[in-house]
Amino acid sequence: MKTNPLHGLMNPASVATIGAGNNFMKMGTMHALSITKDGYKGKFYPVHLKDETVLGHRAYRSVEELPEAPGLALIVIPSEHVIPTMDALGRLGARYAIIISAGFKEIGPKGIEMERELVETARRHGMRFIGPNCMGIVNTAIALNTTVMELRDKPGPLGFASQSGTYITQTLKYLGNRGIRFSKALSVGNEADISIVDALEYLGEDEQTKAISLYIEGIRDVPRFIEVARRITPNKPVVAQYVGGSKAGARSGKSHTGAMAGPDYIYDGIFRQAGIIRVDSIEDLYGHGWALATQPPLRGNRIAVITNSGGPGTAMSHICEEGGMEIPVFSEKLREAVRPLIPPHAPNGNPVDITFSLDTAALTTEIPRLAMESGEIDGLVLHGAMGSGFVKAIYPHIKEFIQGMTIDEITRSLNIDLVGSVALPEKHGIPMLLSSFFDRDDSSTEFYEDRDIPVYDSPEKTARAMVTLNRYRLVRGREPHVPAEPLPLSRAAAEIIEKARRAGRGALDEHEAKQVLAAYGAPVTDERLVESAEEAAAAAAALGYPAVLKACSAEILHKTEKGLVRLNLASEAEAAAAFTEVQKAAGVKVPAIVYRMVKGSRELVAGMTRHEGIGPCVMFGLGGVYTELLRDVAFRVAPVTAADASEMTREIRASKILGEFRGMPAADTGAIVKLLVAVSSVALNHPEVREIDINPVILSGSMPIAVDALIALGS
Amino acid sequence: MKTNPLHGLMNPASVATIGAGNNFMKMGTMHALSITKDGYKGKFYPVHLKDETVLGHRAYRSVEELPEAPGLALIVIPSEHVIPTMDALGRLGARYAIIISAGFKEIGPKGIEMERELVETARRHGMRFIGPNCMGIVNTAIALNTTVMELRDKPGPLGFASQSGTYITQTLKYLGNRGIRFSKALSVGNEADISIVDALEYLGEDEQTKAISLYIEGIRDVPRFIEVARRITPNKPVVAQYVGGSKAGARSGKSHTGAMAGPDYIYDGIFRQAGIIRVDSIEDLYGHGWALATQPPLRGNRIAVITNSGGPGTAMSHICEEGGMEIPVFSEKLREAVRPLIPPHAPNGNPVDITFSLDTAALTTEIPRLAMESGEIDGLVLHGAMGSGFVKAIYPHIKEFIQGMTIDEITRSLNIDLVGSVALPEKHGIPMLLSSFFDRDDSSTEFYEDRDIPVYDSPEKTARAMVTLNRYRLVRGREPHVPAEPLPLSRAAAEIIEKARRAGRGALDEHEAKQVLAAYGAPVTDERLVESAEEAAAAAAALGYPAVLKACSAEILHKTEKGLVRLNLASEAEAAAAFTEVQKAAGVKVPAIVYRMVKGSRELVAGMTRHEGIGPCVMFGLGGVYTELLRDVAFRVAPVTAADASEMTREIRASKILGEFRGMPAADTGAIVKLLVAVSSVALNHPEVREIDINPVILSGSMPIAVDALIALGS
Repeated sequence: MKTNPLHGLMNPASVATIGAGNNFMKMGTMHALSITKDGYKGKFYPVHLKDETVLGHRAYRSVEELPEAPGLALIVIPSEHVIPTMDALGRLGARYAIIISAGFKEIGPKGIEMERELVETARRHGMRFIGPNCMGIVNTAIALNTTVMELRDKPGPLGFASQSGTYITQTLKYLGNRGIRFSKALSVGNEADISIVDALEYLGEDEQTKAISLYIEGIRDVPRFIEVARRITPNKPVVAQYVGGSKAGARSGKSHTGAMAGPDYIYDGIFRQAGIIRVDSIEDLYGHGWALATQPPLRGNRIAVITNSGGPGTAMSHICEEGGMEIPVFSEKLREAVRPLIPPHAPNGNPVDITFSLDTAALTTEIPRLAMESGEIDGLVLHGAMGSGFVKAIYPHIKEFIQGMTIDEITRSLNIDLVGSVALPEKHGIPMLLSSFFDRDDSSTEFYEDRDIPVYDSPEKTARAMVTLNRYRLVRGREPHVPAEPLPLSRAAAEIIEKARRAGRGALDEHEAKQVLAAYGAPVTDERLVESAEEAAAAAAALGYPAVLKACSAEILHKTEKGLVRLNLASEAEAAAAFTEVQKAAGVKVPAIVYRMVKGSRELVAGMTRHEGIGPCVMFGLGGVYTELLRDVAFRVAPVTAADASEMTREIRASKILGEFRGMPAADTGAIVKLLVAVSSVALNHPEVREIDINPVILSGSMPIAVDALIALGS
Repeated sequence: MKTNPLHGLMNPASVATIGAGNNFMKMGTMHALSITKDGYKGKFYPVHLKDETVLGHRAYRSVEELPEAPGLALIVIPSEHVIPTMDALGRLGARYAIIISAGFKEIGPKGIEMERELVETARRHGMRFIGPNCMGIVNTAIALNTTVMELRDKPGPLGFASQSGTYITQTLKYLGNRGIRFSKALSVGNEADISIVDALEYLGEDEQTKAISLYIEGIRDVPRFIEVARRITPNKPVVAQYVGGSKAGARSGKSHTGAMAGPDYIYDGIFRQAGIIRVDSIEDLYGHGWALATQPPLRGNRIAVITNSGGPGTAMSHICEEGGMEIPVFSEKLREAVRPLIPPHAPNGNPVDITFSLDTAALTTEIPRLAMESGEIDGLVLHGAMGSGFVKAIYPHIKEFIQGMTIDEITRSLNIDLVGSVALPEKHGIPMLLSSFFDRDDSSTEFYEDRDIPVYDSPEKTARAMVTLNRYRLVRGREPHVPAEPLPLSRAAAEIIEKARRAGRGALDEHEAKQVLAAYGAPVTDERLVESAEEAAAAAAALGYPAVLKACSAEILHKTEKGLVRLNLASEAEAAAAFTEVQKAAGVKVPAIVYRMVKGSRELVAGMTRHEGIGPCVMFGLGGVYTELLRDVAFRVAPVTAADASEMTREIRASKILGEFRGMPAADTGAIVKLLVAVSSVALNHPEVREIDINPVILSGSMPIAVDALIALGS
């Protein structure tokens, strides 16, 4: 059963506007014009204080006078009137609203309080709403457009949800120029009730929507976001842009919709965990979403590059290879089949370059068909299909030679037939993406775009969209998500933490930290806490040589620099002496830990930090000094599943260090996974734990062992 | 004195075409149409075998019949006729030609031979030419266009040279749509004579050209390229796209113009060394070149972000910060000045968001002026200026309310005055870049573009163009280039190399390699070559403990794994024993080196490889196992100056390792520079040296010391 409120809100049998009048210079009117003029077939009930009619429709003085509860109410009135209006709508039995009005959370304390009351009012009546401070929605399936700009295009397959209203208003013309068409689009505004996560869930459930694009400045409930996205992404691609991670970006986002931003690198991990493909511009958010929404999924990474000129072919090849794809040299057989279709010396081996030739059939249909039928490729990029745009470009030069033929007549005389070309992707289940320097003003570009074959305005963009298809191929190939239950709470760990808290300590000491981690299955040094030279000697003898002795106290920092760490102890005597020396160096009586020295030149790091609205984030990466130097680390939000942890180990740039490397055995990734799952479980079971830092984790042979660990408490 | 042949070739008093006729479906005719129709005022001499007139001009049967030597000859005939034609032109006294005809080097052995003959023929007559296999040139200063597409725009400030003809033909309309205008543009084709380096030099000397864009698939003479670029880039910005570095890219480039490609990472170093800003798409090559050509240079990194909507502001801020710029919060004073210009709760602190408002004057002129006058910012990005495009977008909705007013009338009624806005950058010496979702179809976009203020079609592109202005700021700020003489040849080094070659060895042994490097001033281990246990003991005693003893032989690889390296030797006895053990492990008599162990946990790498057409390339980066793991390395082409070497140390991602770090002192970068200059000098003075690999270079305190070194010989 679909419980998402947007199924109802997006499909109303009637729409009431509150605030829209007849002055077309006012925002309310522009919203109403979109509702009444773009093809919506439902009833329209304008509510207006004074006017008898609004846009030719009978108007009502107040909400109370409406003949029925509207399927959807669109509210565009000064913010101070919004709550009474919602109350009136609720009493009438209305269930859904869109609140365009600004002046809530984004303006500070007064607005925050008003937004809280607004939510309470809606809850009281069981109402759900989008906004406030939003630009409305578009549902092309029923031609419902509540934004301020005209929607001209037929229904499409791309779902869109945005934390900026601009991207579904100012861009409608921009999108039309590129042949990109929405299924549904939502400007979510301040998300006082319905959030972008609800929008994502709804678009995931919507059958018209084949791919989803999200513009994000900050997600309020990240764990739910991940959970919802994880359900969707194995079957329906999701791309997202996140821009809240910079200083000014966070400042701007906050004042814009009051969104709560998080660090960029954490969002990187969130998107990977969720199976969402991150893009870094609004252009790619639309354009790559469009490729995913229209093209069959890529089944492998072999790409054919077919062009009418060398430069674009080289550029597309370059990007595809950088993006992890292959441009395989065609087989002898395929090359021979291509040869007669192109000029004598033109390259036929992939890239295929038919050179500057007007043989449209070869370029757009015959060669692509041969490539798709060959079984040698999984995707195809094509540059140079030109129709009337090319004719227009040369027309001023040639018009006196052609006895009054018009541009259209010349174009027709070229006999460009693209019917076979546009059918290729679906027929062969192979995605095809085009590049052309001629926009929709060109008949060929228009023909492709109108039949859902994306045409980008430069070769690199086409190749990059193919890279995104390849990234989605890898998302589809992930193991099915198995929800992770945190490991059951360890009473031993809880007691250690409780004891430290009762003692007023802000952190566990190293030995305690390792015990807590070990309680959840993390591999730590086998060690003993000792309080005398005799105990130190006995521990070293029991655990083996060479031994390490370290002062154990959460209060003392920089132990190495202070001489509180003794390495390479070779005998009981040395261990005993080390204990005594450490006492002297510390200046106070301090217990110590003794363990057998862990040898290995590969150092890793694991850890956990908490972020508002996101929750505990688990980190893994290159350890030792390189943690600080290179920040080669991966993040995931807890709960971290075994599959998540395993992806983290493959994600770091230096992941090769975990394989067989310079005569060292491959790391036991199962043990690393255990360590990361333990960190995740400590974070979830013990909210008192503020931060975990395990550095280094040394690979002893193949076994990762936590050699040092810090657990900070408090909030 | 300007000796570059392009000053003559690009400014002919007359142009002859050889091959152009009256059939407008043929390429030759299309080239001739551009010459005759786009405003060129010089004489036009068509040479045609049969036709009496060509495009209404008197035609000549042969080159011999021409009334004078043409200032420029454009040749579009089958390749086998090109050489005789060039010969005839030469005899007539012609000095310059453009050879459009393909079928030379790019088709294989026969074409290569023909191209060689072509060059000889031209040389014999003292002729210079562009091509073959090119698309021609554009010189907007004299309205000369020899490409196949119409050139409609007035002269501009962007110079362009391309190894793909597509980018100055298929894109002319594309560029017009974006307001981008060339000064000069050249398709260089196979570069049999005039190369892209000549084109770069010419554009550097051309006064009309304010910035230069280069599309590159492979540079033949990289040292000259760097030398030419170094002269230009301190005063005139150069951007370049390189796409030859991938496997398929190299394949495609080779078959396309016969260009010789090199690895992508080497080109990265080449561009940095030359002060050229690398971009990764044709869109940025044009668009960023256009920003550099039109805007005052950026003098600092503080950017104002001014928009009519939050999303674009957040997105632009994000990219600017990622690109190393700052979005400073405006001072109280500036914020107060901005406050009355925007709605009550709209953000005024930078980003400034006037929210969805039609107050064009505030957005485009008043707030930008306040920001520029404040002294608080160095550059400005602006999103949301809209004119007729916005009116068109809402017109279908509002037309019945406005009593027959046209789109133009409504637009005029908005009283948009951008005259003050477009004057701002020049007046304040502060660059301003715009973003709008409305293209030139919008009156505001057109107004800005026609007055050389770039307008990009999405916020991220605008911000990225500003990042490029910032990159050029850093190039302008570089120390003036002082040409590097290689260090004088070391006879000692030459003798060591000669001895090894005479012995038929493919590499120097470690001791020899270090001696060669030391001869050029590189800091290496102070070591002795020993041939007996006694000598080993004496060496250890003399050099100090702990000592290292290593078998020294170019033939034996993987010495560590074979037990041929003994560390931590603490006495003469241990050193002597180590020598004996190493002999046993080697199974043959082998000399050894002894040095005092170099302690330090920071490992670097330096080296040299040779690349065809590029010459010796010097490398520096993170050493030890991390070289292989992370490829965190920088490259420069020899001769490497001290400034180059110093830039390399700052360029690696982990450059922080060279500073004060974890209690370790900052590295002596002067000594690292010395090491890299030594590597460069060995490469230049000793062409027999094929490859140098110095790994690790250990930082002993602040001092870098080459602890292991390999020098391979041969070609």
